[in-house]
Amino acid sequence: MSDDQKNSTQNNAALNGAESLVQTLLNNGVEVCFTNPGTSEMHFVAALDHIPGMRSVLALQEGVATGAADGYYRMAGKPASTLLHLGPGLANGLSNLHNAKKAGSGVVNIIGEHASTHIELDAPLTSDINGIAQPVSHWVRTSPLAQTVGKDAAEAVQAAMIPPGQIASLILPSDTAWNAGGAVQDALETPKPTAFDESALEQAAKALDGPESLLLLGGAALSESNLEVAGRIAAETGCKLLSEWANARMERGAGRVAVGRVPYPIDIALEALKPYKRIVLVGARAPIGFFAYPGKPAVLTREGADIVTLADAGADLTAALSALCHATGAEQTPPAHVAKAALPERPTGPINLDSLAALIARAIPDNAIIVDESVTTGRAFSPVTKGAPKHTWLNNCGGSIGYGMPVAIGAAIACPDRKVMALTGDGSAMYTVQALWTMARENLDITVLIFANQSYQILRGELTNVGVQNPGPRAIDMLSLDRPTLDWVHMARSMGVEASRVTDCTQLENAMADGLESNGPNLIEVML
Amino acid sequence: MSDDQKNSTQNNAALNGAESLVQTLLNNGVEVCFTNPGTSEMHFVAALDHIPGMRSVLALQEGVATGAADGYYRMAGKPASTLLHLGPGLANGLSNLHNAKKAGSGVVNIIGEHASTHIELDAPLTSDINGIAQPVSHWVRTSPLAQTVGKDAAEAVQAAMIPPGQIASLILPSDTAWNAGGAVQDALETPKPTAFDESALEQAAKALDGPESLLLLGGAALSESNLEVAGRIAAETGCKLLSEWANARMERGAGRVAVGRVPYPIDIALEALKPYKRIVLVGARAPIGFFAYPGKPAVLTREGADIVTLADAGADLTAALSALCHATGAEQTPPAHVAKAALPERPTGPINLDSLAALIARAIPDNAIIVDESVTTGRAFSPVTKGAPKHTWLNNCGGSIGYGMPVAIGAAIACPDRKVMALTGDGSAMYTVQALWTMARENLDITVLIFANQSYQILRGELTNVGVQNPGPRAIDMLSLDRPTLDWVHMARSMGVEASRVTDCTQLENAMADGLESNGPNLIEVML
Repeated sequence: MSDDQKNSTQNNAALNGAESLVQTLLNNGVEVCFTNPGTSEMHFVAALDHIPGMRSVLALQEGVATGAADGYYRMAGKPASTLLHLGPGLANGLSNLHNAKKAGSGVVNIIGEHASTHIELDAPLTSDINGIAQPVSHWVRTSPLAQTVGKDAAEAVQAAMIPPGQIASLILPSDTAWNAGGAVQDALETPKPTAFDESALEQAAKALDGPESLLLLGGAALSESNLEVAGRIAAETGCKLLSEWANARMERGAGRVAVGRVPYPIDIALEALKPYKRIVLVGARAPIGFFAYPGKPAVLTREGADIVTLADAGADLTAALSALCHATGAEQTPPAHVAKAALPERPTGPINLDSLAALIARAIPDNAIIVDESVTTGRAFSPVTKGAPKHTWLNNCGGSIGYGMPVAIGAAIACPDRKVMALTGDGSAMYTVQALWTMARENLDITVLIFANQSYQILRGELTNVGVQNPGPRAIDMLSLDRPTLDWVHMARSMGVEASRVTDCTQLENAMADGLESNGPNLIEVML
Repeated sequence: MSDDQKNSTQNNAALNGAESLVQTLLNNGVEVCFTNPGTSEMHFVAALDHIPGMRSVLALQEGVATGAADGYYRMAGKPASTLLHLGPGLANGLSNLHNAKKAGSGVVNIIGEHASTHIELDAPLTSDINGIAQPVSHWVRTSPLAQTVGKDAAEAVQAAMIPPGQIASLILPSDTAWNAGGAVQDALETPKPTAFDESALEQAAKALDGPESLLLLGGAALSESNLEVAGRIAAETGCKLLSEWANARMERGAGRVAVGRVPYPIDIALEALKPYKRIVLVGARAPIGFFAYPGKPAVLTREGADIVTLADAGADLTAALSALCHATGAEQTPPAHVAKAALPERPTGPINLDSLAALIARAIPDNAIIVDESVTTGRAFSPVTKGAPKHTWLNNCGGSIGYGMPVAIGAAIACPDRKVMALTGDGSAMYTVQALWTMARENLDITVLIFANQSYQILRGELTNVGVQNPGPRAIDMLSLDRPTLDWVHMARSMGVEASRVTDCTQLENAMADGLESNGPNLIEVML
């Protein structure tokens, strides 16, 4: 067979559309499918037996499936597929696709649709799938024929791989899946990042000069090797390094270059960014407020700050930092690394936000993955944990809660040899609580810490921030989760996950040690 | 004040937009808000204290909130509001809005949005809210000003009330909510149903003649009084009465006119409809298959059947049936009522689908509301329960699972003096399992029966129906919920709901008696 033939689609009358789709996904590097299928997806499900190699992971609600695909991409660097049942199945996964989109994660959604002849009948499950998919997708296509679905799937994977990563939604009518004539498509070329803005290089290099200058990093600029280069630039020029409040993935820990985050609370963020008159952006966007607040600015950088965009998230950030390093003459300057001695002392007694941060810092295992949805509880985690052993830290970039446990699933499946810790508030965890079952089913090595403050704590502060003075009891009641109290130990056990409740530092320390030592999932309810 | 003045908006500089919105909703009969609010909705939340009268019900995931609004409309006959946090909060509630739309339920969604100046900054939670709302909404509007939001809200309520009921989505930018100048709008006129098709009356009356003719009823035609009229027509003409597979609300029980349902399984449905050469539609649509299956028809009525549409779901069905009754000369004909003796014998021993149906029939309390999401387990419930005391039966009209427990919440809040039973499969219940917490919080009088067959049982049959022969272990694994087993007693208790597990008929009988006697929520895990 010539190479030309190999790279074209291969017709095989013996394959139906679903089989050609599964084989094409495998050929294009998609090896995992997070799913909750229905009738219209049964041929895809059946194909999983005929075509070996696709790991299929069942979720009890689609928000778990799409969140897991987000976490998988962040850690595997290539997309997983989701398999979703018609418009409503997609709809259930929509908010975690929103988060994935904002994180720059690549996801290939396969969304079942009625057979083309059935749509006009307006059956109960008929809906505007294209309309539901568009707001969270960069690429949407309906594959009309068994003959074309292989090619369409390969192009969906290619779309999902456009840096930093995109949401591709392929709508699969059931007759496309069940008809014969499927044509398998070989791997298409992997999209490359765009070029950084070379015309801004000189200005960027000049801007980085002393403590009034800031190098703001995002996306792939937060990899270990790129941070090393950024560290050289900081050491040479005296500029500060920061990242946005939320990062899809950051490499951290002792021996690496530390990068702080722009704080979430509006007033503190404004204060933190006030010193910087010159800001260079590499993979990050200029910081803005999460929300608008009456009478407060939404742009967080100081007025008149000189902001130079050297590279956006889709650009070649390694090349950008390397060029910036050269232009600032920093290539031989050693970066500052975090020392191991930076680990905090061992706290005892009651659990508070400080002792909690210290205990987590001391517990993080070497090479761990930390999925952080700690919202209010975790605001002090970043500085305290920087001296832990080398680890990877994932934030929620889209702000829709319920991202943490699903993303931990995807990270654990992408990296079966690494320990995963999911740090989550109780309110957030309830959004996609079904994730616990999938953790148990797949025996994933995840330790979940639930910070049980029994409220939407963040909103207590936000009430004041938006100008609500003296909120009344009805308002407060809408932010409270303590009537009734959630029992996370019962919750976890109901879905097959071992669990314990801790009320002081020693209990938490022991529970984390036990959870991280075991090889399956484990939940710790941390009473705050 | 003149009537003219009363019916116009009333400016009150002391009110902000959110306060004028809450007062307008109350003026227009909207007294309940199902919510999970965020920062952008804090002024609405604060207004709940200033403006008394709105019952605000917190849900831990928006699918619970939108499903509850669906159930509320079906039982209260007027819309509730939802309060949802930006695009992702709406997205989480989307699939139950799909179900509500298909049920013809009216819902007024209030969806928070960033302040208008903040949208262009593309903050983490920024999304295309209008685009997300459109596929499930009949009416979408963004209210630009505090001055207009009262008028917009009144029009949203009016849109939601267009018979049989519509989804109205009002997008509320946070500056619209917090700015002063809110103008309260008085009640607008309630929309009336459209006229039925009088030109089809003679043909319809003629079509109903003997056992080869069918009167197919839907929507408001299934009220107690309308069924009485349909019963006269059937007794006079010899036609059969049926309803669609899924009905938003049907009045049933001893002393009423019984109406069966078109079966779900495609082959059985085709067989059931084969006798009918002439079909008259009153509030129903001509039956079609839930899904397309290869080689099987999608239209369930016999080929060449003469189908007369007298009235669609938005028409005045009381007038249509009354006219049809007159035209068939049935006004003095007594209808056939279900006898009390129709109740089944008391079963003992193991629980199977037959004994389960009999026990439920015997347990249904007088005036109960039954929310049915029993999917496979409940296919035999309809004929067996028809002799139970008078009750109301609600089905899922949109086919997206996870509708049952949320709808039960809305029904219980609409009808605090009635017992509610939620009958649900385990797979369906997991979709919106967070509903249990809201039941406990509001102390709702709901008895939940979980049918724990530990699988997506419906899909086992569907695999065969779509032509998959000999499914392999990977396919079967995607339909199985038994690894790990869900423990519903732990699940319910984790959210403050009393629960028990039953394995035989006597245990189930006792558990239902206890659950229905108590005044709060209760869950029974029925092992199948």
